[in-house]
Amino acid sequence: MAKVILKKHKDKRILEGHPWVFDNEIQKVEGTYEPGDIVDVYNNINQFLGRGYINPKSKIRVRIMTRKKEEINREFFKKRIESAWEYRKKLVDTSSCRVIFGEADFLPALIVDKFGDYLVIQTLALGIDKYKDMIVDILDEVINPKGIYERNDVQVRELEGLKQKKGYLKGNFDTNVEIIENGIKMTVDIENGQKTGYFLDQRENRAAIKPFVKNARVLDTFTHTGGFTLHAAHYGADEVIAVDISEHAIEYVKENAKLNGYENKIKTVVGNVFDVLRDYHKNNEKFDVIILDPPAFCKSRSAVKRAYRGYKEINLRAMKLLRSGGFLVTCSCSHYMTPDLFMDMIKDAARDAKKRLRQVEVRTQAKDHPILVGDDQSLYLKCVILQVI
Amino acid sequence: MAKVILKKHKDKRILEGHPWVFDNEIQKVEGTYEPGDIVDVYNNINQFLGRGYINPKSKIRVRIMTRKKEEINREFFKKRIESAWEYRKKLVDTSSCRVIFGEADFLPALIVDKFGDYLVIQTLALGIDKYKDMIVDILDEVINPKGIYERNDVQVRELEGLKQKKGYLKGNFDTNVEIIENGIKMTVDIENGQKTGYFLDQRENRAAIKPFVKNARVLDTFTHTGGFTLHAAHYGADEVIAVDISEHAIEYVKENAKLNGYENKIKTVVGNVFDVLRDYHKNNEKFDVIILDPPAFCKSRSAVKRAYRGYKEINLRAMKLLRSGGFLVTCSCSHYMTPDLFMDMIKDAARDAKKRLRQVEVRTQAKDHPILVGDDQSLYLKCVILQVI
Repeated sequence: MAKVILKKHKDKRILEGHPWVFDNEIQKVEGTYEPGDIVDVYNNINQFLGRGYINPKSKIRVRIMTRKKEEINREFFKKRIESAWEYRKKLVDTSSCRVIFGEADFLPALIVDKFGDYLVIQTLALGIDKYKDMIVDILDEVINPKGIYERNDVQVRELEGLKQKKGYLKGNFDTNVEIIENGIKMTVDIENGQKTGYFLDQRENRAAIKPFVKNARVLDTFTHTGGFTLHAAHYGADEVIAVDISEHAIEYVKENAKLNGYENKIKTVVGNVFDVLRDYHKNNEKFDVIILDPPAFCKSRSAVKRAYRGYKEINLRAMKLLRSGGFLVTCSCSHYMTPDLFMDMIKDAARDAKKRLRQVEVRTQAKDHPILVGDDQSLYLKCVILQVI
Repeated sequence: MAKVILKKHKDKRILEGHPWVFDNEIQKVEGTYEPGDIVDVYNNINQFLGRGYINPKSKIRVRIMTRKKEEINREFFKKRIESAWEYRKKLVDTSSCRVIFGEADFLPALIVDKFGDYLVIQTLALGIDKYKDMIVDILDEVINPKGIYERNDVQVRELEGLKQKKGYLKGNFDTNVEIIENGIKMTVDIENGQKTGYFLDQRENRAAIKPFVKNARVLDTFTHTGGFTLHAAHYGADEVIAVDISEHAIEYVKENAKLNGYENKIKTVVGNVFDVLRDYHKNNEKFDVIILDPPAFCKSRSAVKRAYRGYKEINLRAMKLLRSGGFLVTCSCSHYMTPDLFMDMIKDAARDAKKRLRQVEVRTQAKDHPILVGDDQSLYLKCVILQVI
């Protein structure tokens, strides 16, 4: 097995729990390897740090899978998958949930979501993609789903020298799957929906709006297929306006509204959220609750400044559109927008909007998306609930 | 009304939402006032910042109550108290809860807790103490409790030139009050218990242990009157060991265990937690869940370094005492131990313990203790739930 030796002091992050070795941190590689092979990682004084897979094409040269000198074989994957599944069975409703969350489940670049009786899988790096058949086989054995679907139509795979693809891996089924989230029916399009079809990471945050939406007028922006919207209606809102720029997404909101019998409460708007907020402000509209759940405005470190301005604009406008004492649910799913920076943006917006804020809760992604301590990237979702006065 | 004028640039924190003016931030005071009087606060370019009460004896010279030029009278207090009560009725179980949380309810230095049918009140600054009778009268009108008790036996009052005192303000009742928390009966000693008798701020965090204590062996340290212990037993733990240095507290744990029929599951230990953890380590004891809920190790900025070492020691020992895959619930209620510093300490302990951590949840104080954005002091309770591997 090839031996990857790090430069001096480049072991610190790894020792703190981070599983990635970047190309520029490597002093030398002893021995030969094929792309995707398993290698051992050592620091510059010959201490073993971990074992993982290597890809010379990727800036993330090695992803560590274990800190032990254990064999990476079927038994290894089975143990990892079983332990991830046990964790979910303990902590969340497994009728639909994230089963494997990559690095945080010590299976780097592997994503598995469960929607009802079906699994959706992504293998986002070469080293894990090589084990795809074995992983699918183990998932079938451990969870026994009716079907498994591959959603590898993801650009990031190209950085790894992999092709984009999607399709059935087990069974042949209707890819519109009905799931139940917090007692609400949702149709998930696992073939063409965003990512694996539905954002399970907001499940607990959607439930957290229950106490303050009763009899409220709610504005749910960047609604996607209506997750927060349906929850607001279900928890007793008088009126919910769901906004999204995608007509395809809004079609799903309408279908989900019908599915749950809330057609009369839910109004949909296809439009740019920035424009919609500006128009509501002009027309002096007022809301009791506003939800801001935008897509990642910044997908790179360099775009953070511009993203900050975008976040600030929608937050400032939302604060102004709320009645005094109303609630703002404001999210960011970009890990470049750190929790501290996100809070700074909120304070900044409040100052300009001349509002006082009370923080009701600071939440993150749901518990089936655990956060690996030492890997700041694994904390990506912020959901702050504020009372605006 | 006297006019307090701040030095240049000293308005920044106030504009961000913080309600305190420190003695060394004041340029001059125009007009005369008595200690405790209401004054107006201006910045150095004569912009009105807020209105609050002044105490020349206190380093916290002015505490701002409102950002408007409104009269501070019975109507003002009634509006504030009603709005605080409405917030609780919306967000928490009000059978027992914090009704007023000082600065975060825009009533600086006023604490009101509700335990069943009884209220406990603290007026911790001169300016609010002057309104005590009026506040008690309004609380009686709005909430109509069977009794009200004063727990002003707090040292911080002496910094304000106030005497320590405690006693009945309405009614004459048994000061051992039975409350229900998350379905569990707890006896609260509102006369002699810590602070107002019971730490309501951990209520939601106690409920959060439910998913992972079933059939577990649980160690609950710094248990006080057994809050976490009773919850663990109630949620199906096989065995719970409750440790506290106070014999008086442990008597209440035993009583609460009996009250709920969990005497057989709950074992109590009177002892120093540092020593107890060391002994368990020596004896190779293992646990599935460990709860660390220490009192504030640092009550001042200067003591942070020593406190860090204390936190690290108990966290490191707890990580070692857990079975692989076990859960650590680790808390800090000192606001000097910032969330970032607390996480650094956790990482530091994990590195020394040679453990890998997965963050399940990061929690704060319960929602009836809201956090005033711009006032970092109002975020004081950290509760981090980790899986230790």
